[in-house]
Amino acid sequence: METNNEYRFLKACRGETTDVTPIWFMRQAGRYMKAYRDLKEKHTFLEMCHTPELAAEVTLQPLDVLGVDAAIIFADILLPLEPMGTGLEFAVGDGPVIPRPVKTEKDIDNLRPVNAKEQMGFVGDAIKIVRSEINGKIPLIGFAGAPFTLCSYMIEGGKSKEFKDTKMMMLERPDLWEKLMDKVCAVLIDYLKMQVDAGAQALQLFDSWVGCLSPYDYERLILPYTKRVIEGAQETGVPVINFSTGTSPMLNLVKQAGGDVISFDWRINLDDAWKTLGHDQPIQGNLDPSALMAPIPVIKERVFDIMQRAEGRPGHIFNLGHGIFQFTPVDHVKAVVDMVHEYRNA
Amino acid sequence: METNNEYRFLKACRGETTDVTPIWFMRQAGRYMKAYRDLKEKHTFLEMCHTPELAAEVTLQPLDVLGVDAAIIFADILLPLEPMGTGLEFAVGDGPVIPRPVKTEKDIDNLRPVNAKEQMGFVGDAIKIVRSEINGKIPLIGFAGAPFTLCSYMIEGGKSKEFKDTKMMMLERPDLWEKLMDKVCAVLIDYLKMQVDAGAQALQLFDSWVGCLSPYDYERLILPYTKRVIEGAQETGVPVINFSTGTSPMLNLVKQAGGDVISFDWRINLDDAWKTLGHDQPIQGNLDPSALMAPIPVIKERVFDIMQRAEGRPGHIFNLGHGIFQFTPVDHVKAVVDMVHEYRNA
Repeated sequence: METNNEYRFLKACRGETTDVTPIWFMRQAGRYMKAYRDLKEKHTFLEMCHTPELAAEVTLQPLDVLGVDAAIIFADILLPLEPMGTGLEFAVGDGPVIPRPVKTEKDIDNLRPVNAKEQMGFVGDAIKIVRSEINGKIPLIGFAGAPFTLCSYMIEGGKSKEFKDTKMMMLERPDLWEKLMDKVCAVLIDYLKMQVDAGAQALQLFDSWVGCLSPYDYERLILPYTKRVIEGAQETGVPVINFSTGTSPMLNLVKQAGGDVISFDWRINLDDAWKTLGHDQPIQGNLDPSALMAPIPVIKERVFDIMQRAEGRPGHIFNLGHGIFQFTPVDHVKAVVDMVHEYRNA
Repeated sequence: METNNEYRFLKACRGETTDVTPIWFMRQAGRYMKAYRDLKEKHTFLEMCHTPELAAEVTLQPLDVLGVDAAIIFADILLPLEPMGTGLEFAVGDGPVIPRPVKTEKDIDNLRPVNAKEQMGFVGDAIKIVRSEINGKIPLIGFAGAPFTLCSYMIEGGKSKEFKDTKMMMLERPDLWEKLMDKVCAVLIDYLKMQVDAGAQALQLFDSWVGCLSPYDYERLILPYTKRVIEGAQETGVPVINFSTGTSPMLNLVKQAGGDVISFDWRINLDDAWKTLGHDQPIQGNLDPSALMAPIPVIKERVFDIMQRAEGRPGHIFNLGHGIFQFTPVDHVKAVVDMVHEYRNA
């Protein structure tokens, strides 16, 4: 039996009226919580991703503490790189390292197709455990990296500042770029569908770094692929959230890529973004994650500013513009949930 | 005697019609040029900044090679930190390091006022040398870092990804932030005026990192200070370019901060930005510096797209959205100058 709460997040995804504004946080399970750090002392990050019981445990950790309106499965956007064959490592304190980055046509040819059910079943198993624990309370979101962000890691071999090699493949060898994106899109669609088969009730596509591009390049070299993955994922019938950062000056193009919900970052006023997207477009956002480290009255000012700009319109999911930072006080995060749930439009 | 060329850049700064669109590049003097690398083998970066003859030599290096419509004095936005007392070092291959970063009220109190003419006269002397070399050909631009970007380096002690400490001072201790910004603004205004006294014919204020902020915080905690520096600089009578990156979703606020010219990055289509700013507002931009590494026909497509969006309106200065990258081929940069100068609106 679904409770009111479950309806709240999914209703907002469909643009329907809700009792209060639903809220969840990107990286709501993570290092800012002691329970996570305790578990992390006993297991590596990848062990936690690969072990359904551990991934489920981490997914569940913040739910009661925060009182959020959705869970998101604990995983990493780069997990599909393992079965594709590039390797994936996490150095202590550093970001991801891809031991065999994709630089040449041969590297692209060597990428293996993935059967997500067989090769990434651990994510599906974690989803099943979480669903059995939270069923009837709040819905569970599955996710994947968007094609650009995933390819940027594959090409650069890790995090990047300028995305030089990625942009160069896009601009110098559009034929290779297309070949790579085709392969990645196929993997992503299969992976997202597997998550829904396992029980995910919504999906989010993370295009964390696509904001490094011009609208000119986004429109021609990214949009068609992101659109393909979103439409593929939408065949499952669950709502898909199209998340990106740094793309606020080209939200019209982001909207063309599709998604039941468009999630944007804090670099734009929410009312400006919603006006550009059209008020019939469900949206998600858009507090600066840094604000969560400020004193509570300072946070409140900024949360209320966002709520005011939303004007109580249906189809707003409150979230940050990116993930929670490591040193964020848990009680600040909890306080924001309460602020949003208790907010009443004047 | 001023030539047509000199009028071209300054005329565009004033929104006047020009024969062709003027163009220059941020970091047009730098590591992508062999002449610079040769000089850099014999001197440290700071030696080159501190020695007027060397700074002048570097400033002049690209001018004839590229055929640009303006020179910009070779210096670093962080030079004012030396007389302010935080120290300034450049580790090989790394960015700047500030040995005594500003973390507490005491650190702010310890910052020294600066007499730019006495303590940073080397920049003025370099300007005088360059002016005597290029007078009558193209104008010379002076510059400084904008208050936010400068303070972010002072507080973080170097480059930053999240600007955590900077944002925390802004949000937790607005009293300290104000005190710090007041001191920095005073130094910047004096420094910019000194550059004009020495012969700079235009000024650019670099707010390279302010795009990490929400419009909410920009409006309240940055805009008043940037405005103060721009208005102070404008008292000299030379045009001031207000440059920032990542701020395209809040160009209306950037415009409120002022400047004769607003310079924005490649994350927005030029016509969208110009419409937001108003067509009577002179603008500068906005090619992605990465594009300069692509093959010439690919560059041309993107340059022409920008030129088309400008529609031949007066008041457009062609530039990148940020500085030239280290490994950019010089002949690509030169080719862009020619493309812009030879472009004719259909």
